[in-house]
Amino acid sequence: MSLVLSGKFLIVLQTSGEFLNPTESSMEQIAFWIGCGLLAVGACIYGLGFRSAKRESWEEFYLNNFIICSWASCAYLAMAMHLGEITLPATTVDPERHIYWARYADWLITTPIIIYDLTKLSGVRPTVQKAAMYADVAMILTGIFAALSPHDQRMVWYIVSCLFEVAIFVLLLGPVWTSARRQHHTVSKLYTQALGIFSVFFWLYPVVWILGLKGFGLYGPALETVFILCLDVFAKVFYGLYLTRDREVLQRVGELSRLEAVK
Amino acid sequence: MSLVLSGKFLIVLQTSGEFLNPTESSMEQIAFWIGCGLLAVGACIYGLGFRSAKRESWEEFYLNNFIICSWASCAYLAMAMHLGEITLPATTVDPERHIYWARYADWLITTPIIIYDLTKLSGVRPTVQKAAMYADVAMILTGIFAALSPHDQRMVWYIVSCLFEVAIFVLLLGPVWTSARRQHHTVSKLYTQALGIFSVFFWLYPVVWILGLKGFGLYGPALETVFILCLDVFAKVFYGLYLTRDREVLQRVGELSRLEAVK
Amino acid sequence: MSLVLSGKFLIVLQTSGEFLNPTESSMEQIAFWIGCGLLAVGACIYGLGFRSAKRESWEEFYLNNFIICSWASCAYLAMAMHLGEITLPATTVDPERHIYWARYADWLITTPIIIYDLTKLSGVRPTVQKAAMYADVAMILTGIFAALSPHDQRMVWYIVSCLFEVAIFVLLLGPVWTSARRQHHTVSKLYTQALGIFSVFFWLYPVVWILGLKGFGLYGPALETVFILCLDVFAKVFYGLYLTRDREVLQRVGELSRLEAVK
Repeated sequence: MSLVLSGKFLIVLQTSGEFLNPTESSMEQIAFWIGCGLLAVGACIYGLGFRSAKRESWEEFYLNNFIICSWASCAYLAMAMHLGEITLPATTVDPERHIYWARYADWLITTPIIIYDLTKLSGVRPTVQKAAMYADVAMILTGIFAALSPHDQRMVWYIVSCLFEVAIFVLLLGPVWTSARRQHHTVSKLYTQALGIFSVFFWLYPVVWILGLKGFGLYGPALETVFILCLDVFAKVFYGLYLTRDREVLQRVGELSRLEAVK
Repeated sequence: MSLVLSGKFLIVLQTSGEFLNPTESSMEQIAFWIGCGLLAVGACIYGLGFRSAKRESWEEFYLNNFIICSWASCAYLAMAMHLGEITLPATTVDPERHIYWARYADWLITTPIIIYDLTKLSGVRPTVQKAAMYADVAMILTGIFAALSPHDQRMVWYIVSCLFEVAIFVLLLGPVWTSARRQHHTVSKLYTQALGIFSVFFWLYPVVWILGLKGFGLYGPALETVFILCLDVFAKVFYGLYLTRDREVLQRVGELSRLEAVK
Repeated sequence: MSLVLSGKFLIVLQTSGEFLNPTESSMEQIAFWIGCGLLAVGACIYGLGFRSAKRESWEEFYLNNFIICSWASCAYLAMAMHLGEITLPATTVDPERHIYWARYADWLITTPIIIYDLTKLSGVRPTVQKAAMYADVAMILTGIFAALSPHDQRMVWYIVSCLFEVAIFVLLLGPVWTSARRQHHTVSKLYTQALGIFSVFFWLYPVVWILGLKGFGLYGPALETVFILCLDVFAKVFYGLYLTRDREVLQRVGELSRLEAVK
């Protein structure tokens, strides 16, 4: 709400334009600029797709993917310009740590939209859709608490966060899939494929998180940033292109198949 | 947005796992852990109810109560692990104070949902529902300002916050009740009972708040925490169970009575 | 999320009731109290209008304008009581600066509602409405980053923010206008007039911002506050009154004209 900007933080916020200084560019900085650029390209593709979409169901998918990419691109821009960091001083249980809060601000908005698109595709009833989106928001918020907490409390929040992720999958594999099978067979097929891809990258995020410096410490922040960059670009640009690639399928969303769902 | 975590705050955030140390457990800590546990149990009950609900109108009530309980449980967990506090240093008008921001983060999300459930029951038109929810959010936000402000400004914000609470009751006793009386008589009866209970505990919150250290100082933070714990568990677990107890009533929500409303 | 309130910030937060001291009243303070009062009057007008509205489409316009005015009035109250400020210390590229975060918290909520009202009037499809509202939120958020950033990075965020504003106008002048022309001719005429007024004040905001201390420095914070006060009162009270003045028009919103839109 009200913020004091002093001490260590200022080193981070007030960089006097060093972001334009190429000598300072570490691997993390390069990764942030690449992420910002690729996601901005994604935003442009979806923005143009939105303008040319001829049906409202296409338009909505393009709009959602435009929001995801443009929001994430701004978050990467903030991190590239050293705005999206918090520095936590060293304590008895933890060394000095840098937390990129912009990453969580990105995920807090973009991941519920990814869930929205997936559940929209399946044509599931709105209460299940809302439940999955709520579980996703709770997962990210408890993940923020995990990142900010000292080492031993972090595991408590990490487990709570993973429980919410399990809840998402209980819904996606249960009522959402049941509903998807009742859709037109092309939509149903797309849902199954999309869910497969989604499951892989959604579980890779917590794995990358826990193996990094916040958990087991197998690799440093630079490598973690590169891993998350790959996941973000994949989950936001390519996954979205995969979903919106076939306009005929998007057009059939919500058109229930006349054949009863084969259980 | 961007936060500096240094100085006094660190004493609070970086507890080196003392939350597991039983000798440190004050009355407040015990209350937080009890609250976290009871609300988690509530979340489980509603989560299972959601899975077994056979109609969308039941499902929505179970989902909303699951959101309320799981969110509040996380807020209590944060407070139990010393994460949800702000320490305001002493000034000429106030002694050093501890503000539990997690409590307000909890209320900001859960109280509009409680209002949503109550107005949903009455079948009132969406604009009135939105108006009541907006007044509720504004009430909580101005309450946060009241908690953070120095002593004399606090009363200004407290009055603004109470004005918004009055606005909620103008709506609940006016157009919402009129609409509830037009519902099926079992729904109408449930609304009247629920409104009675709701009115009592919704006005007890500001009374507990103003009689505590932030206002008249009749009791310390420990007793205030216990009072609010009782209110929270009552308003979130038992009140919700009361609302969702009779599934036949939930099924009839939105089914207008054939008899004209007796004005 | 978790905030430390210490050092410089406390000078701002803990004013020991000086807000009641008339000798301290600078031009900015007077402007804030005037803004708070005028917007509260606006909120009362719309609140009473909401109660007396006889159709849901009127009610919604009154509710939206009530939210806009009451929210902005609270933000002005916070600034008048020195609660809504951040003090950024001097750096090599910037002098010490005062940022009124309450102003951005105001705009973040009120401007999307202004866009919502305008697009609602035009009867455009929801995806376009959501797109315009998202672009607006993104414009304000990148504007907050611009205000907090050091001088050279500020221009980067300012440009990003302006790009989002351009995106809003691409939508308002394109699909939204097309849709408005298909409405009943009285609604269509109101949309055209409202869009004209809206365009002027929506572009005056970034001009006032960039010509002030954050950009070219043509005037100090006091004059900037007065300019923004005039824009806020105009955009929130008078513009709203202009929109809701003719109840017959509000009633016709969504009633498509039988005449085909003349392209």
